[in-house]
Amino acid sequence: MADLFRDLETGTLEDTTPLGSVLDALAYNEAGLVPAIAQEAATGEVLMLAWMNREAIERSLSDGYACYYSRSRQALWRKGETSGHRQRLLEMRFDCDGDAILLRVQQTGPACHTNRQNCFYLEVDGDRVRMISEPR
Amino acid sequence: MADLFRDLETGTLEDTTPLGSVLDALAYNEAGLVPAIAQEAATGEVLMLAWMNREAIERSLSDGYACYYSRSRQALWRKGETSGHRQRLLEMRFDCDGDAILLRVQQTGPACHTNRQNCFYLEVDGDRVRMISEPR
Repeated sequence: MADLFRDLETGTLEDTTPLGSVLDALAYNEAGLVPAIAQEAATGEVLMLAWMNREAIERSLSDGYACYYSRSRQALWRKGETSGHRQRLLEMRFDCDGDAILLRVQQTGPACHTNRQNCFYLEVDGDRVRMISEPR
Repeated sequence: MADLFRDLETGTLEDTTPLGSVLDALAYNEAGLVPAIAQEAATGEVLMLAWMNREAIERSLSDGYACYYSRSRQALWRKGETSGHRQRLLEMRFDCDGDAILLRVQQTGPACHTNRQNCFYLEVDGDRVRMISEPR
């Protein structure tokens, strides 16, 4: 854990820190990425988990729409650029250790590439896994 | 992406798959881990992001309480074992690519080691990052 985040643990409500210092201190993995959770702000629904590098974070903040880093394509991924299923970024939060990001978003259309509303459609049911949603 | 998950994309509601096949096919990283999001089932609040190996997944399911893998201690981490801040596991879901897990839980006490209700207490506010919650 970076020292900055350890220092912030004892901070109090409304304390602020420069964004650049926080982005410098995030616990990027060996590929320069941090996992990011996208949550529908209006309902609390967890939509997906993706990955961001620093450029994706900065672009999401400047554009106001979620931008990730695609590990398969090894390139920035402006979510919804082709499908139109964009995520308007309402809030971005970092966790206590600086190793996870929470995006509170307003999702247009389905979040999942399968056209399901969210990506978490496989649920454990005893010794089986059950499909709990269908494409729209 | 494992072929199993690609096949499941086109599945329909209520289809089931053996749990063991799904656990075999998860996209574990080079350390054998998959990121897991813990969400308070009653409110939708995203509590934390942690990591699970296959043993942590199986133990969570058999115990009925969330068990993670601690990357810093390199050992299974039965959440709340010492603090009592356990997470009763209500539902476990996998995502479309098999590279993320969603745990729907009932949290006892604060989820964060800082005694805050959740770990995501640092929110971007323009060019600053603001502390949005305090320890209980």
